[in-house]
Amino acid sequence: MKSDQKFKIRPIGIIRTGFKDKSSAPVQGAFTDAAPGYVEIFDEFSEGLKDIDGFTHIYLIYVFDRAGNVQLVRKPFLDDTPRGLFSTRHPCRPNSIGITVVRLTGRSGRFLEIEGIDVLDGTPLIDIKPYIKRFDSFPDASEGWLENVEAREKPENRE
Amino acid sequence: MKSDQKFKIRPIGIIRTGFKDKSSAPVQGAFTDAAPGYVEIFDEFSEGLKDIDGFTHIYLIYVFDRAGNVQLVRKPFLDDTPRGLFSTRHPCRPNSIGITVVRLTGRSGRFLEIEGIDVLDGTPLIDIKPYIKRFDSFPDASEGWLENVEAREKPENRE
Repeated sequence: MKSDQKFKIRPIGIIRTGFKDKSSAPVQGAFTDAAPGYVEIFDEFSEGLKDIDGFTHIYLIYVFDRAGNVQLVRKPFLDDTPRGLFSTRHPCRPNSIGITVVRLTGRSGRFLEIEGIDVLDGTPLIDIKPYIKRFDSFPDASEGWLENVEAREKPENRE
Repeated sequence: MKSDQKFKIRPIGIIRTGFKDKSSAPVQGAFTDAAPGYVEIFDEFSEGLKDIDGFTHIYLIYVFDRAGNVQLVRKPFLDDTPRGLFSTRHPCRPNSIGITVVRLTGRSGRFLEIEGIDVLDGTPLIDIKPYIKRFDSFPDASEGWLENVEAREKPENRE
């Protein structure tokens, strides 16, 4: 396998939030009480939403379409020590893909009501997966450099 | 935004497992005791692994590069009722991207030792993110149609 292999991805929908620009977006949706938003799935994919209603939590997988340049070591939003990019959830990554677990609070056809979403309004959605606690919930996981880090506002001028 | 927007992604590494073909791969790595494997990160990205060692659990994000055709409603591996694709973790998706939480058991330079990985050997890795229980662990999440579904072998001839 070569590292010059390429794959194409395309949006299956759009994420709508109240965050119109980077400075207003929270560091992580889970830190805010219930940052609400909704997801619009394009018509051609809406059939795939069958049975989604039964889940209280889902993964949204999306493209950070307004991310800046990649720095493999950088200061994250929550700490002032430079950290390896793969030990952070920073948007500027070799592949600008983000994942967030959100609460699914309602559905109306191809629109999903969600809570706990921290992305910019208009973010392209590329996948939805059910959150399955047997596979995804590890309450005893360590938190690495985040262990003693508290929620805080994004430092000014830090992208 | 149009649904014909496209994004390119490229591997940052390769996932190595003992599963050489689809019939031998488990339904989910978390069902098997400790399906071991390792991740090789390409040289150009290895600097980004700084600080990853502090985490017991990480997300691997990868491309199902041997996935078949998309069916928006299909029988999943764990059930015989057709389910909406986005309520399953099935590999055949509009964007063939998979995510798995794995245990990080060791690191040697740009190689990570992992447990609980269910993908085919040689799967292209596109991102690593730290598992942060504050954002990612929801032990009270419902499990939708999977609520009463037990682990089982993949049905024969079901892809």
